[in-house]
Amino acid sequence: MFKIREIITISDYVTLINIVLGLMAILLNDFAFVYVAVVFDALDGMVARKTNTVSDFGAELDSICDVVSFGVAPAYLLYANIGILSPGLNMWGALLASVFICCGALRLARFGVLDVKGFIGLPIPAGALFVCSILHASLIYNGAITGVLGYVVLFVYLIAGLLMICDIRYPKYPRKAYLVAFSLAILIGVLGQPIPLVLCLIFYTIYGVYGTLTHEL
Amino acid sequence: MFKIREIITISDYVTLINIVLGLMAILLNDFAFVYVAVVFDALDGMVARKTNTVSDFGAELDSICDVVSFGVAPAYLLYANIGILSPGLNMWGALLASVFICCGALRLARFGVLDVKGFIGLPIPAGALFVCSILHASLIYNGAITGVLGYVVLFVYLIAGLLMICDIRYPKYPRKAYLVAFSLAILIGVLGQPIPLVLCLIFYTIYGVYGTLTHEL
Repeated sequence: MFKIREIITISDYVTLINIVLGLMAILLNDFAFVYVAVVFDALDGMVARKTNTVSDFGAELDSICDVVSFGVAPAYLLYANIGILSPGLNMWGALLASVFICCGALRLARFGVLDVKGFIGLPIPAGALFVCSILHASLIYNGAITGVLGYVVLFVYLIAGLLMICDIRYPKYPRKAYLVAFSLAILIGVLGQPIPLVLCLIFYTIYGVYGTLTHEL
Repeated sequence: MFKIREIITISDYVTLINIVLGLMAILLNDFAFVYVAVVFDALDGMVARKTNTVSDFGAELDSICDVVSFGVAPAYLLYANIGILSPGLNMWGALLASVFICCGALRLARFGVLDVKGFIGLPIPAGALFVCSILHASLIYNGAITGVLGYVVLFVYLIAGLLMICDIRYPKYPRKAYLVAFSLAILIGVLGQPIPLVLCLIFYTIYGVYGTLTHEL
């Protein structure tokens, strides 16, 4: 069976919405599309389980779409906006964008071949939200400390990239209270205020690092 | 085994060069990077076979990188340049860019789960070369028939997208003479003249359609 019209399911259409949102984030240089793409990325898995249409094809398509929305889009947004924060950092922007996308691709490829409970390394949607919300907030509050925030953002992209390819374990389903707070933060981010999202992502990122350290020590 | 440093091989690094080239095509709005990415996409498979490091991880990474270089990059180049060919077509550019990337993602996901000889549907690197070389040539020769070429390019993106998700069979290894002509065409394309590439890709695209038709009739 190799006809796409015979293997495609309803959840795969949701996944395609995700990749189109990622493309729009790039074409329109707009963070909101990345935030909404995270919602559709969570939805496609839910739809697949509810409709009993979990498939290898769907999983493959999911990784392929995720690299666009959570790899290319954040990388492009960095390069397109870094000059506003700290003029002259364009070359560094291109370099860190490349590092980020390589880490994201490696993270997705490992996820595709691994079969372990929970996540190994920061999941790429979380990585994308982490860097995008901080870049977004930096652009809003740039007036206060012009020239400095570009360096902070570059450093955040590097850290997020490394956290994605490291071996730290992240919980797959955080507590319900966190999910509610997180959904609200995404909504507020889409409306133009990324600070709640920054706080959620800093919390989640540190959560995995802290959990791994205390578990292993 | 989930540590990336333990599973990554030399061919995976070649694959990462591919994704960085795709990202550069987007950041710098430059067709040459897509042409060179095709070379590295062919190289990584050769290196993996020569060094005996063919792996599921490598195949997964390959698909993830291909969607960037041969899906997002052509889509972005369309949107970024369509206004030059036919002013006012930006919305149509965004729409066809979305269709193209969805077809590319479906094509890659099907390739990832299928195990058949040859290709089913136009391979995505060929699809990318097809649309990019025609868009590139249109921008060069736009002066002759201003306003018309934008519509031609949109139509080509649609056709290439549909050919990628259709069931036409394409040969995996074309004849050696074709490979030499094709390599030369890529080199000339990188140097700024995409016409030989346009001819090669029109030939290859029709070749599959013709072969399937004559085989099935």
